[in-house]
Order: sequence, then structure tokens, then C-alpha cells
Amino acid sequence: MTEITGNTKVWAILADPIHHVKTPQALNALMRGRNVDGVLIPAHVGAEDLPGFVAGLKSMRNLGGFIVTVPHKTAIVDLCDEVSEQARAIGAVNTVRRKADGRLVGEMLDGAGFVAGLRQGSIEPRGKTVYLAGAGGAANAIAFALAEAGVSRLTVANRTRSKGEDLKQRLERHHPSVPVEIGTPDPSGHEIVVNATSLGLREDDPLPLDAARLSPDQIVAEIIMQPEMTALLAAARERGCRTHPGRPMLSCQLELMADFMGMRP
Amino acid sequence: MTEITGNTKVWAILADPIHHVKTPQALNALMRGRNVDGVLIPAHVGAEDLPGFVAGLKSMRNLGGFIVTVPHKTAIVDLCDEVSEQARAIGAVNTVRRKADGRLVGEMLDGAGFVAGLRQGSIEPRGKTVYLAGAGGAANAIAFALAEAGVSRLTVANRTRSKGEDLKQRLERHHPSVPVEIGTPDPSGHEIVVNATSLGLREDDPLPLDAARLSPDQIVAEIIMQPEMTALLAAARERGCRTHPGRPMLSCQLELMADFMGMRP
Repeated sequence: MTEITGNTKVWAILADPIHHVKTPQALNALMRGRNVDGVLIPAHVGAEDLPGFVAGLKSMRNLGGFIVTVPHKTAIVDLCDEVSEQARAIGAVNTVRRKADGRLVGEMLDGAGFVAGLRQGSIEPRGKTVYLAGAGGAANAIAFALAEAGVSRLTVANRTRSKGEDLKQRLERHHPSVPVEIGTPDPSGHEIVVNATSLGLREDDPLPLDAARLSPDQIVAEIIMQPEMTALLAAARERGCRTHPGRPMLSCQLELMADFMGMRP
Repeated sequence: MTEITGNTKVWAILADPIHHVKTPQALNALMRGRNVDGVLIPAHVGAEDLPGFVAGLKSMRNLGGFIVTVPHKTAIVDLCDEVSEQARAIGAVNTVRRKADGRLVGEMLDGAGFVAGLRQGSIEPRGKTVYLAGAGGAANAIAFALAEAGVSRLTVANRTRSKGEDLKQRLERHHPSVPVEIGTPDPSGHEIVVNATSLGLREDDPLPLDAARLSPDQIVAEIIMQPEMTALLAAARERGCRTHPGRPMLSCQLELMADFMGMRP
């Protein structure tokens, strides 16, 4: 950390609870690397206080923006002055830029981080058929980013079918050129297979899909970072698949967040 | 600066303009010395935005408090939930503690900093006769702190007599045991002579009082830090007076601010 002075620009991460967040460490290190005279601080704000807190933040002229995480990602959408079409369709925002006039611009970068992570691993989703397990917050963001990236077909497989149908309908409305199907646990017939559920975080979790149906020509990608080698990735390796871990989604997203929030010298 | 994490407590300084403030450097260094996992950031907030900004800050659970400086010291009084009797009488607050329940407690520490600075210089104001040049913000704070410290008599000398009269009346209301008089530019007849005006900041400023009337038994104290040797202090030295510079008022006040805002490990 360089010394904080009256010229230092400020960013924040809003969360409740706050103690576990790692964004301050990551983005302060990133700013040091970029020679930005800035600091990112944790802001512990409860759900009931979010509207008033954000209204106040708007008037802080040396605020560059803020990250938003649990439980605020949905509520923040309506507190922004502008929100990207994608974030609006997903119904969630995790990064907010404060413009010089005080207006707050919201974006959801989970999905863009995932796609950037794939590309960092030399996996180009454009033109590919993709199987996506999950229809929750992360899956929504990733589905929209994959559609934006130009996949040739997207299959959404979710335990609760209605959530999958809802995601399919929103994807078709915003990306009419991308065919979307509702899938089963069987991932066969897709070039890229993505786990966007939380299954795999705990040792006794069931697999998020039927790994016995994986074939060596498939790439299997994970959003879970810890453990790095999930049961799904281990099973995919055993079946000869190329695998892509969860970590790059975060590291790439941190760069995207920094860019979006204007962390520049 | 130690690394900022999700556990780091946050303090701020509210000002407009903000670029010149030195409190972040001073209090972040003080926190390092005290092993506090905390950070103080600059918050650039305009006068029109102060009420909304402060209302938002109240809900930030990991906020320890904030310093308030130009132009917010008067407006902040009514935005606090509790204000000391002294700050209320002065009509200004420069330090705010956020209690765990979100209530904001305001205090004015300019005067206490000045008195602590005197004592650090082995000058005890209790029982002394004091001449005070000025009746502005700093002079108000210092006058109340000197009365609180138990001076035997206080003379207020101000160019605009009505402001001096107003200060005298408020002092008499809150400290009825301390005789207060309205003075002339002549500081003779007082053990301690204090410049609490801004005269001396610029090279071509007139002296704040009639230095020809100073005598070697008097102590002359300054609130101006830059230049360290003001024209008044130089004249006082020439006339054989003991002098007390402006710097200790700030350094002592920083400790008082840190204590008041709960900057503890």
C-alpha cells in the first residue's frame, strides 16, 4: 500500500458479513501493480441499510466505485442510475462505477470473468456447443456471457426445471440468435461442459452432472475454486477430457472490475 | 500501512476541498504505531451533500468514526445524535465517533489539542490569566478549553467587537466561575498570550496584537504552524518572552482524535 493522502481515490466492497472478503487484498495489490493512487476498503452494510448507504456514497466525489457481493447483488440493481442490458436481464450487479457527475453505473462481471478465464486458458467459446449445469446467480451470469461470446448452442441443465426455463426464456429474449435448450444430467453432445452450480464445494456433494457420459473430446470447466481439483474435474480427467479450473474466472474478473471502475493511474 | 482485509476498521476525514488534508497520513501512521487494524480515508463531500452522506455513513458497521473539517464543522453539529456540551456551545464539531448502534457522537477537539500542547510544553494554564486574540472558530474552541482547564481570567480581543462579546456571553453561561473580559490590542497584564487568529499565515499580515506591550514575564503561544516562527513569535522572543509554537496543538489533537474515535487494537 502506498501512503494514503488527500489525493487518494477510494473504492469499496459492500457486503454483509464482511470479514471473509478477499477483494481488498486482491484489488489493492492490483492497484499497486498499476501505480494507482487508490485504496479499496471493506464496507459492512446490512440489507436494510443499503439504499441509504448507496445514496450517500453517490455524493463522495473521490469515490471511484464499489464492488457488491452477498447479500446485495440483486438489490443494488435498482439503486444504480444505469445498468447494462445484460445485468438487467440477469437481475444482478456486482460492480458499480461512480461517474464524475455522481451517477452510478452497474455491471455484472461474473460471466465476463468466466469467459475471459476460458480464453486465458486458450479455450474460445465462440461457435462452440456448451452444456451449462445450473441456473442460479453464477449460472445466469455465465449463460449471458457465453451467449454474448457467440456460442453456437447452449444447453441449460438445472435440478429445478422452472429456473432453467426462466433462464432460457430470458436468454432467448436478449440473444435470439443463440439456440437454447433445456438439458438433462447427460452432458454428451457438447464441446464445452460447465459446472456453474455450487456442487463440489463440499466433499460429500453429488456430481453436478452424469460424468459417466463425458468423452475425451469434451472440455470440462469449473467455477469452484476450492478445492481446485473438484470431484467433477477429477472424473473428467479420468475420462480423458481437457479440464479448466475455477481460479481464472476470479483472477480475470478482478482485472475487469478494476478496468470497469476506472482503477487507472 | 498493513494490508487491508475484510476485518479492517475504517475511519474517514470529510472535507471540501480534500487534496490538502494531512490527517490520512498522520492518523494512518498513528494507527500503525498503535497496532490498529484500521485505515483512514479521505472523503470529498460538498456542503450540499453532507446530510445525505453522513446519514449513509451511520449504517456502515465497520466505521469507527470520522474527522470533519472545512467547510463542515458547523453543519455537522446538527447531524450528530449526541454532541458534547462544549461542542454545542462552540457551535462546531471536528471529530465524530460512531457507536456500535450507529449513533454519532460529536466533539470539538481543537481547544483540547491546544491545551494539551501547552501542557506538553510544560505550560499549565490552570490559575493563569490569559489573553486571547481572536473570536473565530479556533478561538472559540481554545477559549472554551482554557475555561475548562481553569484559567483564572480570560480576556478576549477581537477586531469585530460583537463576535468577541458573543463569545464572552457563551463562555460566561457555560463557565460562570471564569471571569471573561473584552480586551484591546494591548496584551499586557496577562501571564499567557495566545494568538488564535489567522494573522501570521502570510508574510504581509499585520501582527494580531500590539507586540510592543509584551514583557519578558509573559508566555506567547501561537496556533499557526506554518511558518513555525511567525512574526508574533519573533517579536515576542525579541522582547524576552517565552514562546510556544503552533505545532503541538495539532500533534496533541491527533492523539485525542484517535482516542475519541476508538483507534485501539
